[in-house]
Amino acid sequence: MSDKVNSDQKFEDFSTWYDKILLEAHIADDRYPVKGFTVYTGWGYSIAKRIYQMLENMLEEVDHQPMQFPVVIPEDAFQKEADHIEGFSAEVFWITHAGDNKLERRLLLRPTSETAIYPMFKLWIRSHADLPLRMHQTCNVYRYETKATRPLYRGREFLWNEGHTAHVDFEDAERQVQVAVKIYRKVYDALGLSYILLKRPDFDKFAGAVYTLAFDTWNPDGKTSQIGTVHNLGENFAKAFDVTYEDDEGSHRYVSNTCYGMGFGRTLAATIAHHGDNNGLVLPPLVAPKQVVIVPILFRGREGDVVGYSKEIEAKLKEAGIRTVLDDDDRLRPGEKYYKWDMYGVPLRVEVGPREAEARTVTLVRRDNRAKSKASFDELVETIQGLFEDLFADLKRRSRERLESELVDAHSLDELKSYMEQRKIARVNWCGEPRCAFELKDQVAGEVRGTLWDGSDEPTGPCMVCGDEAKYIAYVSQTY
Amino acid sequence: MSDKVNSDQKFEDFSTWYDKILLEAHIADDRYPVKGFTVYTGWGYSIAKRIYQMLENMLEEVDHQPMQFPVVIPEDAFQKEADHIEGFSAEVFWITHAGDNKLERRLLLRPTSETAIYPMFKLWIRSHADLPLRMHQTCNVYRYETKATRPLYRGREFLWNEGHTAHVDFEDAERQVQVAVKIYRKVYDALGLSYILLKRPDFDKFAGAVYTLAFDTWNPDGKTSQIGTVHNLGENFAKAFDVTYEDDEGSHRYVSNTCYGMGFGRTLAATIAHHGDNNGLVLPPLVAPKQVVIVPILFRGREGDVVGYSKEIEAKLKEAGIRTVLDDDDRLRPGEKYYKWDMYGVPLRVEVGPREAEARTVTLVRRDNRAKSKASFDELVETIQGLFEDLFADLKRRSRERLESELVDAHSLDELKSYMEQRKIARVNWCGEPRCAFELKDQVAGEVRGTLWDGSDEPTGPCMVCGDEAKYIAYVSQTY
Repeated sequence: MSDKVNSDQKFEDFSTWYDKILLEAHIADDRYPVKGFTVYTGWGYSIAKRIYQMLENMLEEVDHQPMQFPVVIPEDAFQKEADHIEGFSAEVFWITHAGDNKLERRLLLRPTSETAIYPMFKLWIRSHADLPLRMHQTCNVYRYETKATRPLYRGREFLWNEGHTAHVDFEDAERQVQVAVKIYRKVYDALGLSYILLKRPDFDKFAGAVYTLAFDTWNPDGKTSQIGTVHNLGENFAKAFDVTYEDDEGSHRYVSNTCYGMGFGRTLAATIAHHGDNNGLVLPPLVAPKQVVIVPILFRGREGDVVGYSKEIEAKLKEAGIRTVLDDDDRLRPGEKYYKWDMYGVPLRVEVGPREAEARTVTLVRRDNRAKSKASFDELVETIQGLFEDLFADLKRRSRERLESELVDAHSLDELKSYMEQRKIARVNWCGEPRCAFELKDQVAGEVRGTLWDGSDEPTGPCMVCGDEAKYIAYVSQTY
Repeated sequence: MSDKVNSDQKFEDFSTWYDKILLEAHIADDRYPVKGFTVYTGWGYSIAKRIYQMLENMLEEVDHQPMQFPVVIPEDAFQKEADHIEGFSAEVFWITHAGDNKLERRLLLRPTSETAIYPMFKLWIRSHADLPLRMHQTCNVYRYETKATRPLYRGREFLWNEGHTAHVDFEDAERQVQVAVKIYRKVYDALGLSYILLKRPDFDKFAGAVYTLAFDTWNPDGKTSQIGTVHNLGENFAKAFDVTYEDDEGSHRYVSNTCYGMGFGRTLAATIAHHGDNNGLVLPPLVAPKQVVIVPILFRGREGDVVGYSKEIEAKLKEAGIRTVLDDDDRLRPGEKYYKWDMYGVPLRVEVGPREAEARTVTLVRRDNRAKSKASFDELVETIQGLFEDLFADLKRRSRERLESELVDAHSLDELKSYMEQRKIARVNWCGEPRCAFELKDQVAGEVRGTLWDGSDEPTGPCMVCGDEAKYIAYVSQTY
């Protein structure tokens, strides 16, 4: 099978390649006059919307109520969970005035919504009959990032969906963690994204969580990017916000909480970065705002046949629910149209010339590998659906192969150093002690991102840093 | 035709009725610990989402690109259009700090997005080929309201969709105003809401607009509520933000802008207030999160038949795309279930007892007028679609009849005074001078809301206030 995908540019100079696509494919515009705040433009936001609606639907199917909480949190609520304040207080934006008045108490823009949501959970939860309680919201959160910002990867405003749940006990919260992981997997899988699911080391977990799971994905520049997290919060927030319920014996008990977040900026960035090539975006059909572009190829005197036939094709595809655009802009030549729709990543191009019009066929060109095929008008819809499946399977396979090729085993600090310079993701034996992870970070250009959640790894020797018995295989990489 | 709708409570004591529904039907919770900020809870947000997705789809069909702009606006951009600053500066929230740092320049939370969007339009628009440019975004905006707040009607954070467009000239902007009005009408019509489309008096137009059109609707307490506005901005913002294009002769000209906003809080509130009755919400099927509730009525020994048959019905309705819930919670009696789903406003109830299971029929009960009918299993889907249409037509008709019954002609200030006390919407002859409108507002408990946009009204006598020749019929009411 042909697998010619010309995608060296993104591996050689990711920044230039990425910035060009963001602007030319109308994904995002970083020229907004406040640092770290980006405008999602038309094509980009259309894709992001498809991604978050897919997640929202999946969450609502398993009984998450859609809600919307205020963007502002009062200072006193924010300060109730000690670890949480410590983790976030350096990064919050403060509202101090309204009109000409100084506010009596400061408000902060949510950096995440636990401290907005759990005081309301306290009002809503009375007895075990109110549990489990599950909600989700798609919203922006605000963090005053001091690291370098990059559109969609790291900004001071970011679009995400956060789920929050409350349960009768830790075990039920554990079951919810499994549900959340399964849903997040389904979304990433539907986008053809490969990832590693890691349990973060304790020193890197969410502020206030018992533990944190994270979906890390590869990036063409060799860094890993966290695209989603799932946290079991235990009773930490319940205690801070006094969220209790009456069990069937009349005793008052703290609820157990979980929460999870999927960042749509990073998920969209990964979709761009995994599948895109030298000509621009390559979109999985499921989230492509337009799935097929029809380009009529006109010859003098034969315009009528071609234009009429192109419109017939357009009508047929739209009728079948395929998102189709007929590019009949007569200011552009076909080559210019190919360039434009390639940049936008439209999965399939339908070329229609006089010969096709006469024979009632079309020429189909796949966006990813440029493979051409023919189809008759009558079998068009089925052929296109088949090509969507093939294309998507190939995108997914290439993403997974790339991840596999990034993964290496490092047996010494020197070897690890060299792998980090090559921007690999390295597996190393680790005793589990934070001090060894910190030491490692001091020595090499990478850091411990965590250990496999499913525990399927077995250490193959002593801890790479201290030489004591290893408990885990740790994943080490540079990261966003 | 039966038209027994028991809805006196909302007219007698709107606040009590409304507050009860917000909480019991899980629309919104106003107990969030920051004044003027409300939580949209599950059922309410589901309805709001259906409303805004309907609007988004309509806008995208006529070439509005979905975008998302940052929530923060830098102080200098905000201050570029003089009227705009004057109109909004008393109501903006200011961000002054991040973490422990004082920001170099203050940021404000958007009260509306012109000053965020038009600097980017300046970057995007070069020539007439870039025009018209049309975008929309669904987002929250922030206004430090000093009037009394009421959830969904007036808050300090409110959810809306705003459209923004740029055009080659005023005439093309005028055509866009027509397009926007048509789309907004379609949304309100689809919700069965009656309204008056008014041109606001100049002294009450949007800050920075040439003119403002507004959709005003009735409320059971006799006040009118503005649920949407459409503005022609002319070149006012283009001049402030230097947004120009090169025309086909190479000259640089200012673009003309329009913008429009639909508030989903108020649109949802109107949907609740127009159609709801003493038992709770009554939802138009189009936006009901659940359109049908199946309530099995169990008798000892016959549970099996009824439960199995109920599940068959559920499967059939879901298969047909009807949003259906089977309430088989055995902790509640049928009457308790009726109460609950009535409160949620589910348009149709399907009652299934042993007799129905045996005969393979169902009993159908309309939420609005409680009219009962029977249908066989085979004709169920068609019968339900028909009942949806009937119910919706009745909701729409009742809303329109109520509006008509609110409208009166007042011929003297005394008569107007009396009508305002009765909370009517009065038509009065008006010369068009602001001083007469202000004088009127001083004299009666109401104010001039505007004149019919389509100009179909003709004055019937001299100005009610000054006695000079009247140019318009003005609409006067109390208002939110």
